[in-house]
Amino acid sequence: MSENSNSLAYKSGMEGVKPLDATTMASAQKHMDSLIKPLGSLGRLEEISIQIAGITGKVHNNPAKKCIIVMAADNGICEEGVSSSPKEITLIQAINMTKGICGIGVLSKWAGSELKVVDIGIDGDYDNDQIIRAKVSRGTKNFAKEPAMSRDEVEQAIETGFKMVSDLAASGYQLIGTGEMGIGNTSTSSAVIMALTGASAEDAVGKGGGLTEAAYEKKKLLLERAILQHKPDPGDPIDVLSKVGGLDIAGLIGCFIGAACYRLPIVVDGVISIAAALAAERIQPGVRAFMIASHISSEPAYVIAERELQLKPMLAMNMRLGEGTGCPLAFQIIDAACRVMNEMATFEEVSVDKSYRIDNRR
Amino acid sequence: MSENSNSLAYKSGMEGVKPLDATTMASAQKHMDSLIKPLGSLGRLEEISIQIAGITGKVHNNPAKKCIIVMAADNGICEEGVSSSPKEITLIQAINMTKGICGIGVLSKWAGSELKVVDIGIDGDYDNDQIIRAKVSRGTKNFAKEPAMSRDEVEQAIETGFKMVSDLAASGYQLIGTGEMGIGNTSTSSAVIMALTGASAEDAVGKGGGLTEAAYEKKKLLLERAILQHKPDPGDPIDVLSKVGGLDIAGLIGCFIGAACYRLPIVVDGVISIAAALAAERIQPGVRAFMIASHISSEPAYVIAERELQLKPMLAMNMRLGEGTGCPLAFQIIDAACRVMNEMATFEEVSVDKSYRIDNRR
Repeated sequence: MSENSNSLAYKSGMEGVKPLDATTMASAQKHMDSLIKPLGSLGRLEEISIQIAGITGKVHNNPAKKCIIVMAADNGICEEGVSSSPKEITLIQAINMTKGICGIGVLSKWAGSELKVVDIGIDGDYDNDQIIRAKVSRGTKNFAKEPAMSRDEVEQAIETGFKMVSDLAASGYQLIGTGEMGIGNTSTSSAVIMALTGASAEDAVGKGGGLTEAAYEKKKLLLERAILQHKPDPGDPIDVLSKVGGLDIAGLIGCFIGAACYRLPIVVDGVISIAAALAAERIQPGVRAFMIASHISSEPAYVIAERELQLKPMLAMNMRLGEGTGCPLAFQIIDAACRVMNEMATFEEVSVDKSYRIDNRR
Repeated sequence: MSENSNSLAYKSGMEGVKPLDATTMASAQKHMDSLIKPLGSLGRLEEISIQIAGITGKVHNNPAKKCIIVMAADNGICEEGVSSSPKEITLIQAINMTKGICGIGVLSKWAGSELKVVDIGIDGDYDNDQIIRAKVSRGTKNFAKEPAMSRDEVEQAIETGFKMVSDLAASGYQLIGTGEMGIGNTSTSSAVIMALTGASAEDAVGKGGGLTEAAYEKKKLLLERAILQHKPDPGDPIDVLSKVGGLDIAGLIGCFIGAACYRLPIVVDGVISIAAALAAERIQPGVRAFMIASHISSEPAYVIAERELQLKPMLAMNMRLGEGTGCPLAFQIIDAACRVMNEMATFEEVSVDKSYRIDNRR
């Protein structure tokens, strides 16, 4: 707990974050433009394959070894009744995730992805050796009354996420997804995005399908009051996290920093994931270059963060389960993007009139 | 050519089109709602798996045997310079498609899909036994000067598409995609959608990336003039197709009718595909229930047709290659949707508090 904060691996890791490799990206763009199709006509598939080239330093990629990291943690804010489920669901679903029977379990298996469930702050005990034990605390405190956690706890959680990705990189993983499990974590995520961007609860908090009008008003009021009360410093993401954040979000921040440090593409999923992505970018500008957004979330806070990060989510699925369920879908599209770069023929190889390179279809 | 139009298989096929199976859909909805997730939280994945249940009459589906049909045809309107490529590209790319080196070839292989390229009206000769020979004519006439084709030719092309799907159904295919190759076919598609819906060129014609301002104005004027000149009857889609359509669009109309008749889910792709989908729905109301839209096209005419068909495209990829390249991506998402229905655990099977069924995340 009292480890010297400067000795944390993620901090030295940040010093090594470099931008995307412009030379490789130029080569990748050149190859993409030599393929037998009108220039740019494969849209996001082209952009994603070129981004990955910039990440790995290779024009041709095949990110077959992939892993979704699910950060599971409890949130003290649940005491306030901002969620219609008991917080015990966090542990129950974390266990179910290891059995492959939840949404994320089924979909990650489908996409040929590993799934790692990390107890970064579950308030409960269990007998399951597939959950990775990295509990920073037994859930956060109720930020309606006091700060959610200490700065030290935030940094420990970031360190945990960073080390997860560091280990995955060492084991040859090539593509990372970010998931979460934690009842109450749309409240913490909305609060973090509000605190970082100055957005109002009116603009950032979603009504969702499960909240009554009264509960929605209560949630907005509660988040606004907490920010007024704790005065998180928007220039200090660690402060923001310690006051109104969650351990799952902090853990994912570490994953995003780790991905940039170890040069792995990493998929941003729903509002919890993007809250972490935004905080990570504020902590270490430039890490966003390693991010790929999966699906458009209908949470208003998501859109606020997406705009700042300039991400372009590729799926419009009206999904709001969380767990990281958009990641396996995105993994497949990313795979398709790499196939285009690797397998399409060039104008040189076959006889196609080069006028076809021009967008001729409109 | 002079075959009695009433003896066409697609016409008797239409009499057999029945709505989705409501009983099976209710069972599928019930099963979906029993899975360990908040109700409705997997959005489009849930809807798609339930739609497919309504199509096949089975709650659990695994559409592993899939095929993309590419209708290739030339368009006389190319004489007017509405495209920046020579029309010879149609044949060259049709041949390349059979070699698996085009966008659609690479992506359909990636998705584990068959690809069938149909010469329904290419203006050219070739030595390639993988192209399915079903030439109705050597391309349409220039509809800036005269009707594109006869009613009989439209119906022959529809019949060809219908029989393709009929054959695929007999061979056990479970999922169909719709692609096309035909220089100039965004012009014909826009004209068909304008004629069917009454939309103006201003609202329906896209500027695209390849058209100069002058060429864009010319394209709009040309389409508007052709509609004024030929007066296609919006209540008679065969008339519309014969006057301003293309053989590729007509062939795809037959595919959509065939899919509804043989109860196969069929993917709508870009603007050419959706022009055919709209015409098919006008010819035989109800066929839209068998359609699943892949990606959001940026062509304004696409959006007009999408609204009438009430489709919900699942991908936002900024793709505009055509060829059917959105279909393989959609195939994977459809597969994921079926996996959710088939593989997730129910609340009965595992101990999860049922309060989690309620959307608790917002």
